Amino acid sequence: MTVSRLRVDAPGGAYEIVTGAGALLDPRSWQGVERDAVALIVTNTTVGPIYCGPLMDRLRPSFSKVAMLELADGEAHKTWTSIETIVDALLDHHADRHCLLIALGGGVVGDLAGFAASCFMRGVDCVQVPTTLLAQVDSSVGGKTAINHRRGKNMVGTFHQPVRVIADTDTLRTLPQREFVAGLAEVIKYGAVADDAFLTWIEQSLDALLVRDAEALTEALTRSCQIKASIVAADERESGPRVVLNFGHTFGHAIETGMGYGQWLHGEAVGCGMLLAAEASRLAGLIEVQQVRRIAELVRRAGLPTRAPSLGIERYLELMRGDKKARNGEIRLVLLTGPGQARSQPVEEALISAVFHEHEG
Amino acid sequence: MTVSRLRVDAPGGAYEIVTGAGALLDPRSWQGVERDAVALIVTNTTVGPIYCGPLMDRLRPSFSKVAMLELADGEAHKTWTSIETIVDALLDHHADRHCLLIALGGGVVGDLAGFAASCFMRGVDCVQVPTTLLAQVDSSVGGKTAINHRRGKNMVGTFHQPVRVIADTDTLRTLPQREFVAGLAEVIKYGAVADDAFLTWIEQSLDALLVRDAEALTEALTRSCQIKASIVAADERESGPRVVLNFGHTFGHAIETGMGYGQWLHGEAVGCGMLLAAEASRLAGLIEVQQVRRIAELVRRAGLPTRAPSLGIERYLELMRGDKKARNGEIRLVLLTGPGQARSQPVEEALISAVFHEHEG
Repeated sequence: MTVSRLRVDAPGGAYEIVTGAGALLDPRSWQGVERDAVALIVTNTTVGPIYCGPLMDRLRPSFSKVAMLELADGEAHKTWTSIETIVDALLDHHADRHCLLIALGGGVVGDLAGFAASCFMRGVDCVQVPTTLLAQVDSSVGGKTAINHRRGKNMVGTFHQPVRVIADTDTLRTLPQREFVAGLAEVIKYGAVADDAFLTWIEQSLDALLVRDAEALTEALTRSCQIKASIVAADERESGPRVVLNFGHTFGHAIETGMGYGQWLHGEAVGCGMLLAAEASRLAGLIEVQQVRRIAELVRRAGLPTRAPSLGIERYLELMRGDKKARNGEIRLVLLTGPGQARSQPVEEALISAVFHEHEG
Repeated sequence: MTVSRLRVDAPGGAYEIVTGAGALLDPRSWQGVERDAVALIVTNTTVGPIYCGPLMDRLRPSFSKVAMLELADGEAHKTWTSIETIVDALLDHHADRHCLLIALGGGVVGDLAGFAASCFMRGVDCVQVPTTLLAQVDSSVGGKTAINHRRGKNMVGTFHQPVRVIADTDTLRTLPQREFVAGLAEVIKYGAVADDAFLTWIEQSLDALLVRDAEALTEALTRSCQIKASIVAADERESGPRVVLNFGHTFGHAIETGMGYGQWLHGEAVGCGMLLAAEASRLAGLIEVQQVRRIAELVRRAGLPTRAPSLGIERYLELMRGDKKARNGEIRLVLLTGPGQARSQPVEEALISAVFHEHEG
């Protein structure tokens, strides 16, 4: 069993990403975060029954108390009610400021436990244990936490860096194919916006990734986390270069919100959103059609949706004007500017309309 | 009109405290925080009708839009529901990440607007405009934000430094005497835990303070903010020396929570709590009886309560075990260790019982 460690030097605190097959129960993964205090594992009804028992057995000797809380699964539960449930569980177990929250699950569990950790008693430690590909390559790293608001995804949240990320590739074995594929969208994103050589590697390795070849997975995970870690270290609060990691996300969030949370998986919306954003980049004169085709082809081969749902251009524009990155109602998009390069800029609504004209429905 | 500026060098960001008569509408107070974005003034139904109109007129030329939101007044409204009301108002006014929240009111408004600012779109700027003595000398400085939980005051919150604090002593003129007196508790606290010469000055100036003599008020405000700023700069997240600012607060929170929020004002509970904590310090052998008498005399002269309400010792101990500063259920108190000196330490429950035996009911 090989466990590799990658250091993230975020201004809000440095921490390690531990990756590898079997990392979840490897004692080395937990060294340095054990403490004489309560550990609360926040998980969901899908992942909890599989991994929580062995993990609690592993952790019990290292904490004064190990407890668990199973939340309902799905984006629809990323609400304040769930945060209150976590706070109640912490108080039930007499957790104090030295307690440790452990997020065991996908992005929803990670966002919820992370947000609860950032505001319980004004901030306690959190370990992210992502069990989906999406969470392993993206949401568990970087300290973003959030809950949804009926008027926008992730509208309320904080930046709160975890004290450790433990990404066990073995946990991906039980992941439904649809969710696995959704995670590939974020892997493709890293290549598109930051590393053209990695994008080429993904093109060559996509078939191996789709059958979850262990070696290909570890490589994809490591390179994705390296890219994310280096960008987060430079820009913890998304005021500068980190914004490129939102490639495909403005379109994606509009799709997710417009369809109602949970209809499209986040990664599916981002996959389609990257294709739309690539097309927008071409219409803005920033890239050639071949670069759009590379993205479109990867999205298609991965099995991600290539057409936006029929919501109507006006509805899309309304949703995008309300995006967190919008500025005085002016829509901003992350556009590709070349191979492995991207930037954020304001975009005319006419251009966005033209994109949907081609790719909606 | 004299406006003085005091700089706070918190690790989470440096900012200025602007104090003085007329500071609220003085254009210099707002220099550097104006922006081409939405400003939302969060206020309450008591203060809003008096100050909000002139403030909006003052700010309108400096922002793309100035809006206001009046919340119900009182500790009972420091809830997530109020945070959602603020988020809804921000979205109604198309506020984006560059917006500015302005907390115009007392500690409740400051805590709510501060917490909303810390998590709306993962963090936006906030200006604190405290209009009560308590908020001017304490809660507006230092970046603490919070909402209450039915099982504990300020149980959920964040550290989120304001970008400016504007404390206008003129706004204290309309403050009810009971609230004014409650604010004096925190002024006394600074002398007790950090500056014996200031405590002596308070003893000499208390009569002038009680009739709100402008000169005495400005001096009390300035020295209190200086003490708080220097302590916050050294310890933003209350892991070290900042903890002494909780002198009287563990007893005080127990009184507030035990009586139900809003029955005792925070400052009243802290005033009584300081007397109890001074007595605990004496029982622990840390200070002489004369030092207890100085605190007790100031609390009495200020008109703050000198006896704890009859909740029963068991109920008090239960509440204090759940305090945010407790460690594995062990009660910790800030105790006086000499003139202008204090530290936090674990305290036997028998000692706490002895304090209540003398001072309850």
